[in-house]
Amino acid sequence: MKQYLKVDEWSIIEESFDPINHEISESIFSIGNGFMGQRANFEEQYSGPSLQGSYMAGVYYPDKTRVGWWKNGYPEYFAKVLNSTNWIGIDVFVGGTALDLAKCKVTEFRRELNMKEGVLIRSAVAEMEDGKQIKIESTRFVSIARHEIGAIRYAVTPLNFSAPIRLTVYLDGDVKNKDSNYEEKFWNEVSKEVSAGSANLTLKTKKLDFHVTSVMTYDVFKNGEKLDLTPSTVEKEKYVGNDVTIQAEQNEEIVVYKYVANVTSRNHGLGQLVEVGSKLLEEARTAGFDVLLSEQVAGWADKWKESDIIIEGDVSAQQAIRFNIFQLNQTYSGEDDRLNIGPKGFTGEKYGGSTYWDTEAYCVPFYLSTADSSIARNLLIYRYKHLEKAKENARKLGFTKGALYPMVTMNGEECHNEWEITFEEIHRNGAIAYAIYNYVNYTGDKSYLGQYGLEVLAEISRFWEERVNYAPRKDQYVMLGVTGPNEYENNVNNNWYTNRIAAWTMEYTLEVLDYLKENETSRYNELVETLKLKPEETDKWKDIIAKMYYPADEELGIFLQQDGFLDKEIIQVKDLKPENLPINQNWSWDRILRSCFIKQGDVIQGLYFLSHKYDLETKKRNFDFYEPLTVHESSLSPCLHSILACELGYQEKAYEMYLRTARLDLDNYNNDTEDGCHTTSMAGTWMSVVHGFGGLRVENNELVLKPFIPGHWKSFSFKVMFRGSRLKVSVSDKDITVSNETETPAAIRIFDRDYTVSPLGMIQVENAVVNA
Amino acid sequence: MKQYLKVDEWSIIEESFDPINHEISESIFSIGNGFMGQRANFEEQYSGPSLQGSYMAGVYYPDKTRVGWWKNGYPEYFAKVLNSTNWIGIDVFVGGTALDLAKCKVTEFRRELNMKEGVLIRSAVAEMEDGKQIKIESTRFVSIARHEIGAIRYAVTPLNFSAPIRLTVYLDGDVKNKDSNYEEKFWNEVSKEVSAGSANLTLKTKKLDFHVTSVMTYDVFKNGEKLDLTPSTVEKEKYVGNDVTIQAEQNEEIVVYKYVANVTSRNHGLGQLVEVGSKLLEEARTAGFDVLLSEQVAGWADKWKESDIIIEGDVSAQQAIRFNIFQLNQTYSGEDDRLNIGPKGFTGEKYGGSTYWDTEAYCVPFYLSTADSSIARNLLIYRYKHLEKAKENARKLGFTKGALYPMVTMNGEECHNEWEITFEEIHRNGAIAYAIYNYVNYTGDKSYLGQYGLEVLAEISRFWEERVNYAPRKDQYVMLGVTGPNEYENNVNNNWYTNRIAAWTMEYTLEVLDYLKENETSRYNELVETLKLKPEETDKWKDIIAKMYYPADEELGIFLQQDGFLDKEIIQVKDLKPENLPINQNWSWDRILRSCFIKQGDVIQGLYFLSHKYDLETKKRNFDFYEPLTVHESSLSPCLHSILACELGYQEKAYEMYLRTARLDLDNYNNDTEDGCHTTSMAGTWMSVVHGFGGLRVENNELVLKPFIPGHWKSFSFKVMFRGSRLKVSVSDKDITVSNETETPAAIRIFDRDYTVSPLGMIQVENAVVNA
Repeated sequence: MKQYLKVDEWSIIEESFDPINHEISESIFSIGNGFMGQRANFEEQYSGPSLQGSYMAGVYYPDKTRVGWWKNGYPEYFAKVLNSTNWIGIDVFVGGTALDLAKCKVTEFRRELNMKEGVLIRSAVAEMEDGKQIKIESTRFVSIARHEIGAIRYAVTPLNFSAPIRLTVYLDGDVKNKDSNYEEKFWNEVSKEVSAGSANLTLKTKKLDFHVTSVMTYDVFKNGEKLDLTPSTVEKEKYVGNDVTIQAEQNEEIVVYKYVANVTSRNHGLGQLVEVGSKLLEEARTAGFDVLLSEQVAGWADKWKESDIIIEGDVSAQQAIRFNIFQLNQTYSGEDDRLNIGPKGFTGEKYGGSTYWDTEAYCVPFYLSTADSSIARNLLIYRYKHLEKAKENARKLGFTKGALYPMVTMNGEECHNEWEITFEEIHRNGAIAYAIYNYVNYTGDKSYLGQYGLEVLAEISRFWEERVNYAPRKDQYVMLGVTGPNEYENNVNNNWYTNRIAAWTMEYTLEVLDYLKENETSRYNELVETLKLKPEETDKWKDIIAKMYYPADEELGIFLQQDGFLDKEIIQVKDLKPENLPINQNWSWDRILRSCFIKQGDVIQGLYFLSHKYDLETKKRNFDFYEPLTVHESSLSPCLHSILACELGYQEKAYEMYLRTARLDLDNYNNDTEDGCHTTSMAGTWMSVVHGFGGLRVENNELVLKPFIPGHWKSFSFKVMFRGSRLKVSVSDKDITVSNETETPAAIRIFDRDYTVSPLGMIQVENAVVNA
Repeated sequence: MKQYLKVDEWSIIEESFDPINHEISESIFSIGNGFMGQRANFEEQYSGPSLQGSYMAGVYYPDKTRVGWWKNGYPEYFAKVLNSTNWIGIDVFVGGTALDLAKCKVTEFRRELNMKEGVLIRSAVAEMEDGKQIKIESTRFVSIARHEIGAIRYAVTPLNFSAPIRLTVYLDGDVKNKDSNYEEKFWNEVSKEVSAGSANLTLKTKKLDFHVTSVMTYDVFKNGEKLDLTPSTVEKEKYVGNDVTIQAEQNEEIVVYKYVANVTSRNHGLGQLVEVGSKLLEEARTAGFDVLLSEQVAGWADKWKESDIIIEGDVSAQQAIRFNIFQLNQTYSGEDDRLNIGPKGFTGEKYGGSTYWDTEAYCVPFYLSTADSSIARNLLIYRYKHLEKAKENARKLGFTKGALYPMVTMNGEECHNEWEITFEEIHRNGAIAYAIYNYVNYTGDKSYLGQYGLEVLAEISRFWEERVNYAPRKDQYVMLGVTGPNEYENNVNNNWYTNRIAAWTMEYTLEVLDYLKENETSRYNELVETLKLKPEETDKWKDIIAKMYYPADEELGIFLQQDGFLDKEIIQVKDLKPENLPINQNWSWDRILRSCFIKQGDVIQGLYFLSHKYDLETKKRNFDFYEPLTVHESSLSPCLHSILACELGYQEKAYEMYLRTARLDLDNYNNDTEDGCHTTSMAGTWMSVVHGFGGLRVENNELVLKPFIPGHWKSFSFKVMFRGSRLKVSVSDKDITVSNETETPAAIRIFDRDYTVSPLGMIQVENAVVNA
């Protein structure tokens, strides 16, 4: 499906209907507002392949774990992103036959995701089996201003006939998850009401008792005039609807405005759901579709003001980066610290859980720069709130103290079950510690440390303390049996990155302890008391930091990904015959494990996180050795390499890596977009542009830029918020300009020179940009 | 359930009925004849917990693989040992109420497995809810003389009432496997016939089309007189039976003799199954129960003549060793080279598959010594016949040549799916090569090499050649990403045992090539041609042999189980608190992996197999280091340690290890005997006695003995067949006697002195036995 979609600066556009691509488009054209999301399923019946998906943020299902061979320590359940009530449904019947694009000749078709306004628009002309031609047009959105409201304008026009058209406007809770482990449906009906003109349906999950109430109403217009109808009600198990029949003459447009409120027990009392939903719905209907739509346009304009990236001279790249920013913004808005960013956002149900280390490693940087600092802070607090669960998780695995955050979670409990990942990919703990450092470094908000940060850091340090062991022969501490970020190695000893981030966590924890002791003494004392932190512990951390074993090869001057890495047969990816790639589809698992090929950067991950601790030469030697061995078969890999390549002046490589991430879903690069978009990796694309091409860093409380512009781009610009200011950075092959869009002055270093951008002011730096 | 069963030299005896232990007893009291087997389920209805099991050797089901996360290279199916038609069923009804021991007061109960005669006997007195007391007595066996015949004598006596008793004698194919992955039943009905006095039922498996026909008939006697009855027929889906009602006066004994033939499409044409079965059945019925029983007694006497071990002075040990020998003999008779020895024999369905490396490592030695050499040869030919599948398996994992035998199989295809085992526990290939060496060394049958052996050896050597890789920094060959026999380590580099057995395979293959070149030149040429064996290949093997990397620690003078083993925290098992054991039930998997604890001997496995290549000091250093780290949580572990301990003169340790294996199932040591007995590990128990206490080896074509006797035993004796002779070796604390039970003279070395035991003669060696 390479370049199947039309290239456009602000929209994703599909101009013909191909059932083969429909599920992929259902993912790509998904809409969401951080609280609910909806795949681009059709409103009317569709009998072709389709992955139905209506998701309510934070409503999940603990599906019984399915596993071939049980290992002690596996979680009992896997938290599923839950497909909930289909609220978009509007069936269309002509002479008793349902309109179903799978059974029609579709002569015209257009689907557009207008990212600027956050609206999904679709139009089609379909010829039914009996030759009747119908035009449909739909506009829908989930409101960014009213989090629980979705609205649809759905128009039907008979093109070559006149006939009664029956419309069924409904809510259908009899849905299932495609990836249910035991083919089970996860919802029970609680209540339903249906009357002429409105209906509501309340379901609860079979476990955990999440309640979701959908309330719907609608208006029908013909030729612009509202009709006074006498609908009949339809009621089935977990299903409520209205049937209305309208006599339609040829070319008369019948328009349904459907309004739905979806409210959940996460935000409202159980007894109030119908009432609250009805009230919100009435307000929305009273406002009317056009007002809701204008709120939507305004809301998205605000988002873009903070986060837009403009690329001139490359429409495809422009479209791609906006798509990535759009998906991130519609997945997580940061207003609810119980939510997080699922790997597929609201675009699919695969993977389950909502939180991976992707959040800390990839998403936090995006939100730090493109939203108020409270948003990233909420992502950190999310983990703080899970600290007790992370401690329980460590106990479950046999640790006497400390916290191990889960690999995948919804509520703080682990819900992943592959031993080599669940139990061993423990570097995730390091990313969670790092995000605290990153947040404080970026925002300067040191209050976070005493308030929340130290507790998390101390418990993670305690985990590392117990997880390493002293190897007397080496007189060093080792860490055995781990899986690093490169999941193409399992159960290795002394993964350099894991050892490094573990020691770094302890270093940073000690630093934070010193800071608090000096600056927030009473809070410090309180925390030492709460944590029961003993001097023996901090002494032990110091000993571990001093004596941590870091595998390295002196001859090559590189860090070794793990013990024995150089015993492998070292072959570069470019020397593999193309039919071997991707190796995860073409090679047996053991061959992958034995090979030297790297799924995603591992040593590189460390050099990126701890960039300030390593000189360019070190980075270069490691990049030169490892990047050629990296197959980038994780969507999270190329962006880090792009950023490091920029720093090293490898501009072609940087752009190559950027391309692999930017249009991953739009061009269905990994052949799996039908399952949903790679939402978290989209933050990586943003990082490629801002941290990579823009060269953005924060060093010594100062924003630093070292931009370059890829050869064929005319210019690019991005927004970045930093300590109260919002800057627009524009880079062309001639100059760099930085405009301050706020009243807060901003100090900034560009390459090696310091500037101040005054309130609403601008600076321009000429001839500074190295062209690729 | 420690010592729940009564200790007896020849029988396993249970003297009361405890429903809690019933499933365990169902396993322990199982009967089989190498062609079919039957758990000790009750003939009459039983509504309590029970694992129904009727098994036909070689009839299996390729159940769709169930796995949490798929890895490339996994097999599509897992071969299930198949529970087939319940042929033992005889329901008993008194006044419309079924006799069901789960619903009665069982006032007397006795179950006896008479191992000497191969017969299961049960008697019970049950008081039904209405106070009626019934006595039942059953005697059943599967015929060792007629492989497809099972016979039951089932007697019912009303003790305190007179009433009509209705008996339903039936065949029920509507059975399921408890461990079906998707709760599916695996059988379809093909045909059935039922008439007064007989019935037959033919089923076929839903996949692979195995057909099994059961044909039954029966006679009923009252007070010793055969009754002329008018049975009514019962017919249901996959079920046929006869109802007969007999007026029974108090204390009158009603006896049913039920005869069943179970025949399969493995041995007969599809169209002939009913006919063949009926004919076999008619012959059996004509012979009658008593004749069948006397054949059974005679058949088992023959088996015992070849394989019995007598222990005087320790009835518990005597019972245990006979139980182990009995189970092995009833699992595999060696007459069909398509069959093998499943890990649970005919005693349960767990694990699936029929063939593990247990066969080569543990069972071949047993059959070599206790049966005609053709039996062990058939076990080898079984693998020869699977060579093409093993080559396909290697291709599937990405190898361009060579053969990788599966971890678990039924028909040569892999059917296990845990990557760390399926793909990595490749040392199994070495055991298959070793069995060829072992067979030829023991029997002297070098003809096997040219006929079958070399092809297998060469393809395995080719596999090793491609599986190792050259590590330039070491200037040695390494083998990365394997799992050794110790499954508490996964995906390690340079497992000493695997490296060693790989190099040894190549050494032996080269040796065999030289032998054939010299002694069977034309066959040699033919084989070189067939195998397309190139000089570059054998040169490469020589290079690998010369430059194989063997991890070792010079300071300790030990081989290292794998790279980095000494980086682990080394703690001995004795220093663990008891509540940690067994660690596989108390520790998370990652904790087990990180620990130094060994599930079953790993380095020790190599020192056992290649015993002749290592001196006592080397063995001692390694044993002293590794045994204290070994938790023996595989039933296959203690026996090897027992043998090596004997060799090292660690007599207490040897006896301790022997005890852990000998009564494993009888005392339900691992708390899992309800799933079936640990059949293959029983061969290990035999080895503990004969290779351990007996010190039996074959060196330079000579039988060698270095016996010792555990302290409190008066004497022990075992049979051993060797190159045409059968010797009875008796060891007491005073002397060793060796009697030759055959006409073939036998040369034998006892400790360091050579003897010849003349035909039917005997030698006696005094004061030679070191007492423990």
